[in-house]
Amino acid sequence: MSLISLFINAGLSAGGAVVCYRLILDYIPIFIARKMYGNDQCKVSNAPVPEPMGVICAAVYLIVMFMFIPVPFFEWIGMESTEFPYAKLLAILSGLISISTAILLGFADDMLDLRWRHKLLFPTLSSLPLLMVYYVAGNSTTVIVPSIVRHLIHPIAVLPITINISFIYYIFMGMVIVFCTNAINILAGVNGLESGQSLVISASVSLFNFVQIYRFGTENTTGFWHHIISLYFLLPFTACTAVLFYFNKYPSRVFVGDTFCYWSGMTLAVVSILGHFSKTLMLFFIPQTINFVYSIPQLFHLVPCPRHRLPKYDPKSDTVSMSIAEFKKSELKLLGSIFISICRSIGMLYVNEFEKDGEIYLRINNLTIINLVLKFGGPMHEKTLNDVLMTIQILSSCLAFFIRFYLASLFYDVVE
Amino acid sequence: MSLISLFINAGLSAGGAVVCYRLILDYIPIFIARKMYGNDQCKVSNAPVPEPMGVICAAVYLIVMFMFIPVPFFEWIGMESTEFPYAKLLAILSGLISISTAILLGFADDMLDLRWRHKLLFPTLSSLPLLMVYYVAGNSTTVIVPSIVRHLIHPIAVLPITINISFIYYIFMGMVIVFCTNAINILAGVNGLESGQSLVISASVSLFNFVQIYRFGTENTTGFWHHIISLYFLLPFTACTAVLFYFNKYPSRVFVGDTFCYWSGMTLAVVSILGHFSKTLMLFFIPQTINFVYSIPQLFHLVPCPRHRLPKYDPKSDTVSMSIAEFKKSELKLLGSIFISICRSIGMLYVNEFEKDGEIYLRINNLTIINLVLKFGGPMHEKTLNDVLMTIQILSSCLAFFIRFYLASLFYDVVE
Repeated sequence: MSLISLFINAGLSAGGAVVCYRLILDYIPIFIARKMYGNDQCKVSNAPVPEPMGVICAAVYLIVMFMFIPVPFFEWIGMESTEFPYAKLLAILSGLISISTAILLGFADDMLDLRWRHKLLFPTLSSLPLLMVYYVAGNSTTVIVPSIVRHLIHPIAVLPITINISFIYYIFMGMVIVFCTNAINILAGVNGLESGQSLVISASVSLFNFVQIYRFGTENTTGFWHHIISLYFLLPFTACTAVLFYFNKYPSRVFVGDTFCYWSGMTLAVVSILGHFSKTLMLFFIPQTINFVYSIPQLFHLVPCPRHRLPKYDPKSDTVSMSIAEFKKSELKLLGSIFISICRSIGMLYVNEFEKDGEIYLRINNLTIINLVLKFGGPMHEKTLNDVLMTIQILSSCLAFFIRFYLASLFYDVVE
Repeated sequence: MSLISLFINAGLSAGGAVVCYRLILDYIPIFIARKMYGNDQCKVSNAPVPEPMGVICAAVYLIVMFMFIPVPFFEWIGMESTEFPYAKLLAILSGLISISTAILLGFADDMLDLRWRHKLLFPTLSSLPLLMVYYVAGNSTTVIVPSIVRHLIHPIAVLPITINISFIYYIFMGMVIVFCTNAINILAGVNGLESGQSLVISASVSLFNFVQIYRFGTENTTGFWHHIISLYFLLPFTACTAVLFYFNKYPSRVFVGDTFCYWSGMTLAVVSILGHFSKTLMLFFIPQTINFVYSIPQLFHLVPCPRHRLPKYDPKSDTVSMSIAEFKKSELKLLGSIFISICRSIGMLYVNEFEKDGEIYLRINNLTIINLVLKFGGPMHEKTLNDVLMTIQILSSCLAFFIRFYLASLFYDVVE
């Protein structure tokens, strides 16, 4: 029955993709007329690019989900209400609440440039129903202890195979939600990057779900259901995002906006929590995690941060190169200068020190992995840059599968 | 326990009102800077009025609801998951999905001027989870047959006291949702009207819930819960709307936008369905229903409809008067001219027939109850107009209580 529902879900997703395609074409002139557009910083022409087109795809996604929700429950029609799988419907609805409010938050951010504290508070609170449903469904908060740790500790104490970390696990899930909703937004600014990375991650996570369903078979019905519900949310998302990527790839005919970034991040976080693989999800977010860690000095103003950190466009050669932050060395905070010394010594930062008017100035590349790629690769065409970033994302998905299915079996006695 | 939750809900609502007040003041300059404003058609000055401020209050409302959701379920912490009241949590979450997507739809409509078919389709679909939860909770779809009908039919057939109208009831509830989400939007355009009418209705429905809780006591636990859950949604809404009304009343410092109208209509529809009083809710929407029926000829273009139907402002006397639609009599469709003759004969329409260039022209007031009030009352100050409309709304609430509690007992053998 769940598999039939999955086929219907796939069918609705395909329909959703067609509707997305038509509606984007429909709404491009409407966005322009309503002055909802951005200007592409890395193009010669200054033509307006409709933004945030993500809201159209997100609306179609919600409609697909609303139409789909009754499907997995058809078999219970007319049965005793006590037999109804309340926990399953609750899981779907709580996930949908988090996603729909993330879309609302993103759209409001596109229109209003919200404050950071509101952007962090809102997804945290909107994920409360999800975590609560996770709690009442009696879901596991145990983590498996790596066998190597158990063997090392063995002379001192006997560790169990699994440890219940209880409420710490809820804090971890809350952090996954806040991280994911913002991670894609931070790694952005190149044609096709936001939609492209989301597409790679959602396709990879879908594949992971299929692999798990194949491995579990029908023996482990709970695990089976966890990955099925994850796919219920992922297939329509992948379909709508693929269409959006088609319009967003170089040269962008539409921009996706913060709306898309929040929607995408929240959807991926939700499927990982409903699917019980939030730790595995982090493996698929390796480039975003590195980008976030690398960005921290600028995000928290340990190192001066210019208004925009996008690559610099050179209209003559039609290439982009790394963008630079320039500041007096004396402005640098202690932690900032430690960070710069470390990154410089391992070659992960372009640094140029020079003197002007008796003061020492520093020029460093802005702290995103986009600029890091340009530091190593030199100036390149914007399409090439995005291709490189997509390749990194795909390779990191391969790495994620390798870690999850091969390395994990070396470190853990029990791997699900 | 439910009553303690209700106190906590009231406390959170009060907190929400304070936050709304501060955030509105915070966001007024941000809205202006982002060019999100309207111009007041009925004022001498052309100062920009921030719009849609409803989105700020709606966001605060969602945050209050998210913080509140775990509260009614505290007593089940640590208990067996089989004892958890899944149906109650499902009811709250499904209602919240409909409300949050209505807010998203409204905000998108404010920004993008959506098409009518999208505006009707989206709330219909977003209410599917709500109706589905209503279904699986095994909720009643029976209506009580008026005793007078039973007595009249008696010689022919014996009618039961209640009839199960099954899926027709779901269609009715779907129509309630679509009607409510649009009804407030149609009765709009005077300072304070949208927020004022919503405030009167939500306060009235809250009072109705309190009366029912008092009547049921703890004997009828299901009925008790229905009205408690209704209040869980209504109290924060009433609090946020009261603050919005404070800024929106004459002279408007903010406009509420379509965002507010959809949010408000959907919230009232949701509480009536969760509270099992969707028929009673329609009594509180009497002015909106009359306005809708009266508007039909213009909404469906049986009578020519100008772009705006707002009252006409006269800067000299600082009053508003009814606005006029002027058209050739020959343009009129058959149904349109029947409507005009009927309304004219009962004095419900201003009609002026005159000849120009050998053609007969008609001038009628635009078909809203706002213009109807101005037809009877003559030109008046905008504040007076809104006061009159508010009085009508309050009187109709009194009428609703009279019908629900007195008249119904004459017609029905069983009244809950």
